[in-house]
Amino acid sequence: MHISHIEHIGIAVKNLEESIKFYEEVLGLKCYAIEEVADQRVKTAFFMVGQTKVELLESTDPEGPIGKFIDKKGEGVHHMAFAVKGIEDALATMDEKGIRLIDKAPRKGAEGLDIAFLHPKSTHGVLMELCEDKNK
Amino acid sequence: MHISHIEHIGIAVKNLEESIKFYEEVLGLKCYAIEEVADQRVKTAFFMVGQTKVELLESTDPEGPIGKFIDKKGEGVHHMAFAVKGIEDALATMDEKGIRLIDKAPRKGAEGLDIAFLHPKSTHGVLMELCEDKNK
Repeated sequence: MHISHIEHIGIAVKNLEESIKFYEEVLGLKCYAIEEVADQRVKTAFFMVGQTKVELLESTDPEGPIGKFIDKKGEGVHHMAFAVKGIEDALATMDEKGIRLIDKAPRKGAEGLDIAFLHPKSTHGVLMELCEDKNK
Repeated sequence: MHISHIEHIGIAVKNLEESIKFYEEVLGLKCYAIEEVADQRVKTAFFMVGQTKVELLESTDPEGPIGKFIDKKGEGVHHMAFAVKGIEDALATMDEKGIRLIDKAPRKGAEGLDIAFLHPKSTHGVLMELCEDKNK
């Protein structure tokens, strides 16, 4: 598998508007997009930090994945996403190695990327996402 | 403040050797350095992923910061570090804005960088580190 860079860091927040204010006014970053991903029951805000995006995630449903995460652990880093080439082959190889996959096949995520999650039980505690931009 | 990129992602792990094996054999990344930071009571392993390092942290003392983190939350992302220019000015400006600083002045971290931590109570849940490489 070839990982080129960290595509994004997903951060669970309680209130998107207040968090955007912190990232812009204190850290000096610029929010370039806000997107609702109905499928994941989140509203997201994106910031570019060098090669990597910071993706803030506010739950639109207490029973959604981010709602449950915040309920259990509070605000904080939710997942780390790697940019890869050949996501299908990467998943097949991991499956063969016994890695627990949340998505056995890629699905569409924010910004039109092909994405798949790996289970933190198989990755030493970090919820990891693989992403491929097939338009590049 | 000017943030150029994410300098590293710090990840707390229980066993450095087993985790290195996962990052190398499953993710295909290459560990380029192992360093003990006595001051922080950790042994660290570094991987380059594009512009950003992944820094795995194993505690050398159950009462150290990583030991306590794992005891409370388990393995997972521990902190996120931004590369900045002018770390002293950045800290002074944050202090003026009422941001809670763990380090009011920079100190030496791994790889000889000047570093300072911001308290997660002021950053919407993420333990954040500012880093500056004054040799660059």
